[in-house]
Amino acid sequence: MSDFENQHGYFLEDLSVGMAEQFAKTVTEADIVLFAGVSGDTNPVHLNAEFAAQTMFKERIAHGMLSASFLSTIFGTKLPGPGAIYMSQSLVFKAPVCIGDTVVAEVTLREINGRRVSFDCACRVGETIVLEGDATLMVSKRP
Amino acid sequence: MSDFENQHGYFLEDLSVGMAEQFAKTVTEADIVLFAGVSGDTNPVHLNAEFAAQTMFKERIAHGMLSASFLSTIFGTKLPGPGAIYMSQSLVFKAPVCIGDTVVAEVTLREINGRRVSFDCACRVGETIVLEGDATLMVSKRP
Amino acid sequence: MSDFENQHGYFLEDLSVGMAEQFAKTVTEADIVLFAGVSGDTNPVHLNAEFAAQTMFKERIAHGMLSASFLSTIFGTKLPGPGAIYMSQSLVFKAPVCIGDTVVAEVTLREINGRRVSFDCACRVGETIVLEGDATLMVSKRP
Amino acid sequence: MSDFENQHGYFLEDLSVGMAEQFAKTVTEADIVLFAGVSGDTNPVHLNAEFAAQTMFKERIAHGMLSASFLSTIFGTKLPGPGAIYMSQSLVFKAPVCIGDTVVAEVTLREINGRRVSFDCACRVGETIVLEGDATLMVSKRP
Repeated sequence: MSDFENQHGYFLEDLSVGMAEQFAKTVTEADIVLFAGVSGDTNPVHLNAEFAAQTMFKERIAHGMLSASFLSTIFGTKLPGPGAIYMSQSLVFKAPVCIGDTVVAEVTLREINGRRVSFDCACRVGETIVLEGDATLMVSKRP
Repeated sequence: MSDFENQHGYFLEDLSVGMAEQFAKTVTEADIVLFAGVSGDTNPVHLNAEFAAQTMFKERIAHGMLSASFLSTIFGTKLPGPGAIYMSQSLVFKAPVCIGDTVVAEVTLREINGRRVSFDCACRVGETIVLEGDATLMVSKRP
Repeated sequence: MSDFENQHGYFLEDLSVGMAEQFAKTVTEADIVLFAGVSGDTNPVHLNAEFAAQTMFKERIAHGMLSASFLSTIFGTKLPGPGAIYMSQSLVFKAPVCIGDTVVAEVTLREINGRRVSFDCACRVGETIVLEGDATLMVSKRP
Repeated sequence: MSDFENQHGYFLEDLSVGMAEQFAKTVTEADIVLFAGVSGDTNPVHLNAEFAAQTMFKERIAHGMLSASFLSTIFGTKLPGPGAIYMSQSLVFKAPVCIGDTVVAEVTLREINGRRVSFDCACRVGETIVLEGDATLMVSKRP
């Protein structure tokens, strides 16, 4: 097998409804600082503890797009994995993620429609759903 | 005014349909390395030039969620700005973003429905739309 | 299955001689700057193009430990994956890695001796071996 | 002296058995996030506090290659310093390094054999040896 084939994820023929994968990560201050740096999102609710204390969240929270990116991590590294093309993603932010929280992202294959593959997506902290959505990726057939 | 009020963005009374804001950033290799670190998304299409050369993109591309995060940057820092609460975001990835591309993100206020404020969102590189979607944020009334 | 089991890699019963995995990454200036930052290794051969030009390498080279870390990436994420314990690693640096080179790291399971699992390790750039070594990890039995 | 000579480390004639140098650094969450980004090593034992709590380590630990890189820091900046060529390194991981630990790396010159110079290497946290190994570097004669 070529390097490309070795590094490629699932092909369309390998996928079936109900397949699921997880990625989980503890959110640290460093993640928030670096996410602010690459995104430019310097919202004080993420970076300013005094401002955040006066919001309904009472403390600094992580960027919602950081949790969303953990879904992309699953798609890009596990299911379908390298080679799949991200078509669309919907995101509903349900609850805040605070520093020290461990976010467990999970995607479950819902439907295969030609080369378009749809997934149910959720992120949770403990038992609390913090993010829900669905995603569609394009997956190619085995060459 | 308190620090909190000084740092707060628009209140509901300040918003009207058609208001728009932009954020733009050139995507660098450093952004991609750092985004991989915070997200865990080490998909070779972002990090491996040889793998990427064999995909339809022909070169390394940025994480789609990096462009998406530029929308969050506008919401969190400009319109509505600090204090608004991110409820939902849809994302349709239309074209790749490559290293060196300058992504121009723009949001336009579409509808105000009670405290829920909806926006049309787009990111483009030059004339090419790379990302489209819509977003809803909750904005509080002036205290 | 619990989150822990979902996130765990191979158990001892799942492993056999000859299993192999790859991780590959293009080395960028950003990687070198960040590696210098976290390691403190500010050797001018990595950071100073004028100094590097006067060495036998003629240009800035990547930290050898950066290529070595790609082996750790395979062990920690693919084979054996999360849960395995890194016992030892030998490294022979055979050739330099320059900015823009894509390093392909590969490990092959050589021997299972009780819970100790040994691997042959190599990193190459194109056809050139840049790093060779062997590694031993401790892998636990299925609970 | 030229810039190159000013920036160069020890030449072979300057070295003798028993010479020793240290580098020490406190390992932070930020180091771990950044090391994950440059290496691609997103092993949950480094990034996921809940997963790590269920391992024998009971908490998140640093990448072993991060401690190893502190040895490279000594070789590249102090002893022998810039201009030396890293030939080989062996690493035995003896104990975990946790967030907040200060790792003290130390190398001691053991043998000079032609231009090949060998070092005993160790990293410790407090009194605990966390990493041991030996290294060989090639050092050139004074020009």
